[in-house]
Amino acid sequence: MRDPRYDILFEPIAIGPRTLPNRFFQTAHCLGAGSDKPGFQAHFRAMKAQGGWGCVSTEYCAISPESDDLPLVSARIWDDGDVANLGLLCDLLHEQGALAAVELYHGGPNAAALESRVPARGASQIPSTFGFMRSCREMDLDDIREVQQQYVDAALRARAAGFDVITIYCAHTTALPHQFLLPFYNKRTDQYGGSFENRARFTRELVTQVREAVGDELAISVRFGIHTVANNGAQGIRYDDEGHRFIEHMDDLVDLWDIVSEDLENVGPSRFVPENFEQRYNVGVKQHTDKPVINVGRFTNPDTMVSVIASGQADVIGAARPSIADPFLPQKIREGRVDEIRECIGCNVCISRWAIGGPPLICTQNATAGEEYRRGWHPERFERARNADNDVLVIGAGPAGLECATVLGKRGMRTVHLLDAASEAGGCIRTIATLPGLGEWARVSHYRTIQVDKLRNVELILRARLDAEAVLDYGAEIVVVATGAVWAGDGMSGLRHDTIPGADDALDHVLTPDQVFAGKPVGERVVVYDTDGYFMGVGMAQRLAREGRRVTYVSAFDTAAPYTAFTLEQGGINAQLRADGIAVVTGHFVEAIAPGGVMLRDRFEEAAREHAADSVVLVTQRRSDDALYRELKARPEALAEAGISGLYQIGDCVLPQLIADVVFSGHRLAREIDSANPAVALPYVRERAVVGASAAPAALSAR
Amino acid sequence: MRDPRYDILFEPIAIGPRTLPNRFFQTAHCLGAGSDKPGFQAHFRAMKAQGGWGCVSTEYCAISPESDDLPLVSARIWDDGDVANLGLLCDLLHEQGALAAVELYHGGPNAAALESRVPARGASQIPSTFGFMRSCREMDLDDIREVQQQYVDAALRARAAGFDVITIYCAHTTALPHQFLLPFYNKRTDQYGGSFENRARFTRELVTQVREAVGDELAISVRFGIHTVANNGAQGIRYDDEGHRFIEHMDDLVDLWDIVSEDLENVGPSRFVPENFEQRYNVGVKQHTDKPVINVGRFTNPDTMVSVIASGQADVIGAARPSIADPFLPQKIREGRVDEIRECIGCNVCISRWAIGGPPLICTQNATAGEEYRRGWHPERFERARNADNDVLVIGAGPAGLECATVLGKRGMRTVHLLDAASEAGGCIRTIATLPGLGEWARVSHYRTIQVDKLRNVELILRARLDAEAVLDYGAEIVVVATGAVWAGDGMSGLRHDTIPGADDALDHVLTPDQVFAGKPVGERVVVYDTDGYFMGVGMAQRLAREGRRVTYVSAFDTAAPYTAFTLEQGGINAQLRADGIAVVTGHFVEAIAPGGVMLRDRFEEAAREHAADSVVLVTQRRSDDALYRELKARPEALAEAGISGLYQIGDCVLPQLIADVVFSGHRLAREIDSANPAVALPYVRERAVVGASAAPAALSAR
Repeated sequence: MRDPRYDILFEPIAIGPRTLPNRFFQTAHCLGAGSDKPGFQAHFRAMKAQGGWGCVSTEYCAISPESDDLPLVSARIWDDGDVANLGLLCDLLHEQGALAAVELYHGGPNAAALESRVPARGASQIPSTFGFMRSCREMDLDDIREVQQQYVDAALRARAAGFDVITIYCAHTTALPHQFLLPFYNKRTDQYGGSFENRARFTRELVTQVREAVGDELAISVRFGIHTVANNGAQGIRYDDEGHRFIEHMDDLVDLWDIVSEDLENVGPSRFVPENFEQRYNVGVKQHTDKPVINVGRFTNPDTMVSVIASGQADVIGAARPSIADPFLPQKIREGRVDEIRECIGCNVCISRWAIGGPPLICTQNATAGEEYRRGWHPERFERARNADNDVLVIGAGPAGLECATVLGKRGMRTVHLLDAASEAGGCIRTIATLPGLGEWARVSHYRTIQVDKLRNVELILRARLDAEAVLDYGAEIVVVATGAVWAGDGMSGLRHDTIPGADDALDHVLTPDQVFAGKPVGERVVVYDTDGYFMGVGMAQRLAREGRRVTYVSAFDTAAPYTAFTLEQGGINAQLRADGIAVVTGHFVEAIAPGGVMLRDRFEEAAREHAADSVVLVTQRRSDDALYRELKARPEALAEAGISGLYQIGDCVLPQLIADVVFSGHRLAREIDSANPAVALPYVRERAVVGASAAPAALSAR
Repeated sequence: MRDPRYDILFEPIAIGPRTLPNRFFQTAHCLGAGSDKPGFQAHFRAMKAQGGWGCVSTEYCAISPESDDLPLVSARIWDDGDVANLGLLCDLLHEQGALAAVELYHGGPNAAALESRVPARGASQIPSTFGFMRSCREMDLDDIREVQQQYVDAALRARAAGFDVITIYCAHTTALPHQFLLPFYNKRTDQYGGSFENRARFTRELVTQVREAVGDELAISVRFGIHTVANNGAQGIRYDDEGHRFIEHMDDLVDLWDIVSEDLENVGPSRFVPENFEQRYNVGVKQHTDKPVINVGRFTNPDTMVSVIASGQADVIGAARPSIADPFLPQKIREGRVDEIRECIGCNVCISRWAIGGPPLICTQNATAGEEYRRGWHPERFERARNADNDVLVIGAGPAGLECATVLGKRGMRTVHLLDAASEAGGCIRTIATLPGLGEWARVSHYRTIQVDKLRNVELILRARLDAEAVLDYGAEIVVVATGAVWAGDGMSGLRHDTIPGADDALDHVLTPDQVFAGKPVGERVVVYDTDGYFMGVGMAQRLAREGRRVTYVSAFDTAAPYTAFTLEQGGINAQLRADGIAVVTGHFVEAIAPGGVMLRDRFEEAAREHAADSVVLVTQRRSDDALYRELKARPEALAEAGISGLYQIGDCVLPQLIADVVFSGHRLAREIDSANPAVALPYVRERAVVGASAAPAALSAR
């Protein structure tokens, strides 16, 4: 039963001519579907509507080929094909009782148009800050009319597709209306540049035109970046100055304000910012508007949501990442199942796939994210397995084992024993979550441990280490090995494919991250050598620096932690490294290690130089701890004799991978545990045009 | 008429059971089509068959979802849909009398599987060298059988699609067979690792299995990387040792050897290597095989081709880039039209699009590359324009103007006057081609100047500068402004969106690249500041260093010339910068400029530091030289009075862009000069699945 203090979250609210059925709004976010994978787009978002989100938006949706954003995947509403494809989304959302929103996008110089090859137009001729080799033509007055007409035409197509809410994207410095507003992009001296009114003119005109075109039945929202410190503040806008002023200036035209901030706070990672992290920019907005206001802020806690509304900070809870991690978040609040909310951990691997360009979204917490259509997975519904009359032994209660055991439990397996040698569940998460800034990542194991606890057929057994004989004797018909991976102690890496002379973690002065976590002594002067490229190298450096050591972080890549460029953490991490007093050396190899120091070499130079260090931490590569699996697999007769019909490995035990992929690995096996060969994933639906394929009626022609 | 000394290029040659009709083989290269854009894939390659290539290959073609390579676009032959889509390619190639080849690919750890999420398998558990966060499972004997079976199944699908030649990809360290062969990737201690025979076993087995499966009617080719200096040679193979040995070891199984090298020579840019740049590895190969041998080497000169065959270096001329730049290269040789060959300039923007991930291929020389299907452009055929009874004035004989005038000439416009203020045609190419290593880029203007010269209706008029009045008086009905762009002299850039204090190219110590080319004096100590990110910054640094100056190259990016990572030039450029004695400072902004020096600041730090310099060269951004266009456009009545019905701008005059896009811009306008609104590109065919679309018979369902 719902806690009555959450009632306010379920009160309908009018947004212009439409009514939002509750206060949950899935704000625009990318997923890798665009308009070209219509099934993925529609079913992914419709799942959220089924889970209780009152309005669900597309990601940024390019209004014309001029804003082709490849290699980054946006939605597109260029032609009738896009209308048809996005129409499927609208239909499915409406079936669930939700409103459908579309976020209209023109990127100015930011859209690279690498597919369409249409010349970009922008407020002034300055290249994009988001990539090199992207400039634009400075728009003349004809260009301004033409681009405004593109918005109108796109809005009409959106109406035809069935959208209820037209969102004008004016935020993140990446959308043309925002660029006109910001002196950072707008250096014009005509009636569209200079004064505040002039810089706001482009957007005011286009919203007026869109309103006129689509009529009174659709709601118009503006997604507005209220605060940006572009170029150290000199050319941005402040929330308490032009931010509020813009809202007042536009308020008569707008039905709904979707307020976001900028910079580090954009898609704020849990590493840097807590829930409701944009609060400081959002407080006071409602004093400047008569219209409902959406806020975002990685909201997963219903108490925080209530306080946001009750305090007058906002009217509607916006969410992107929390709705990915748990599409059923609203329903779980409504039904009083708050402890079943799968909370976003703020790791941003979701956005990393968009930033890489092309691949579908993934989520560390929700293995079904992106798989709703192509694999037919529902995050909350699990069919009883055809082989549910089996007992399963899962060895290793890390993220893969936890997820696998949970899903196997929900699929009704007779018993699932989840064993771990440690004194608590979590596996690698137990140490990773102790790294600076990564505390929220513990939700990966906390959530699953709670779910395991609720499942009567799943038993978590700790402090239990089995050898092959013990596994054979255990009595389970299905054995899943999830024994994880360990950091290599010999310096082997994907860059050099060789060990490093002197690298041996049996020596006192050479350590792996595992050994650091386990308490092996670390000297005063430390070199952390990173050929991994994600969180562990910088995490080790920060941990050791904050413990008072003099740390040199050596990256073999051009930058510190290059993968964090995709998770939008890299700028913040680099700033933190400096603030922690860590010396950052990029583009260097550690060529050799000896007591007292390492030899460092610039990637492009021949000569190495000595660098003094008491300890060296090798964050070079991980190796699967697959000895148990391989030993069992090598004994097919013994397995048969023991009645073991299925032996599988999951997670890092297969190969070292992202936590999101580890969780997926465990989930996938459990979803398909009753397939003909559970070790191999079933094919998924690829949405593409096929020569000569006939269209199934009322379905996807490329299904 | 064909020169008889080229006859040898047109002699058929048997490759196993099939006959190659001549000696021109389009070897595998990426284009951004894969199997998901079947029209693009088929029509792009079929154009080459029409142009005389005797065999045309797909790009690397993943054999199973395990080798999903997103965000990089490969072909795929996973299922019946892929068979249908690639079948269209085979049909069109056969219609032209060419053979169809497919290059089967498994990537080991290199395939990131970001779409399929299938765990990678490899020879040993070492991450990819091509990207971070990509490891693999070390294959056991079952895995080896399973992956070999994937090859067999893919080969059977390839046969069903209609391919004549099955190529086993064993090169570039990126393909699993090559990885098994190289100690760099293969650390195994079983029968698949250690000795040469053991490391070759995986490939020998799989080629045997493929041969057995597909039967005797298909040819089997091996694309073999004969020389690789992986990890400084310690773990690679040498052409004159295991390279030759592998060929002998496999020769009984193979119908055709497609020999390539590695490292810097892979897709060798003209910046570093000349035509036939792999010769040193290729000489002698034929002594170790009884089968025909293909060589690649950016061949565009028929005399070189003849010498390659006549000297016994190889039997077949392989080409990727030259076939992109001119699909009709063989036909032009056959017909004695050698001066019409549009020679590849070796700039590698073609491969840059693959490396970026996603967008379709472009070509600096051939504006129609990739547009065969989606825009219906034929590189050699031009329809008479419906408004051909017009005179055209093209102002500016840079790459855009040259291309536009050429195409307008071929479209039969009454007269085309191509004017330039300089004493020779070429525009920006005239200076760019003088930069170290970029001499071949002059082909862009040389080729076009020759074609213009052949066209009776096109006249090149040099040393002619027109102001707006003169344009109005000229008497042309159509005016095309192609006046290019100039380098900004105030330090404005896409990174800071602001000028740099003290940056003013009117001062003696501040220069733009244009001024350097024009001979403005440069001091002894030079800072070249690069926020552009492509060739000009490093080009300026190298030019000035080679003239004897002490140069510091400052990049605001993490690396020198980041765009050259996509053109596969970055490693070589970095090595050259060091060899030229240039100090390379990355990740820094120039904060201020004064006589005697600049203030440099690390992007992640607050404090700036002084750096002494006598001259500063600003490679920050370019600005369109569009004054003439804007002045004319502002006078619609005068244009009407002068009888000017069309006023257009093309190339850098619209916005500063890649040379390839500049050429495209000129071509596009000329192709569409008789459309309803030539200023705006006509829509192109997007190949995607559309909900509910019905399939046109025998055509693409998504057309």
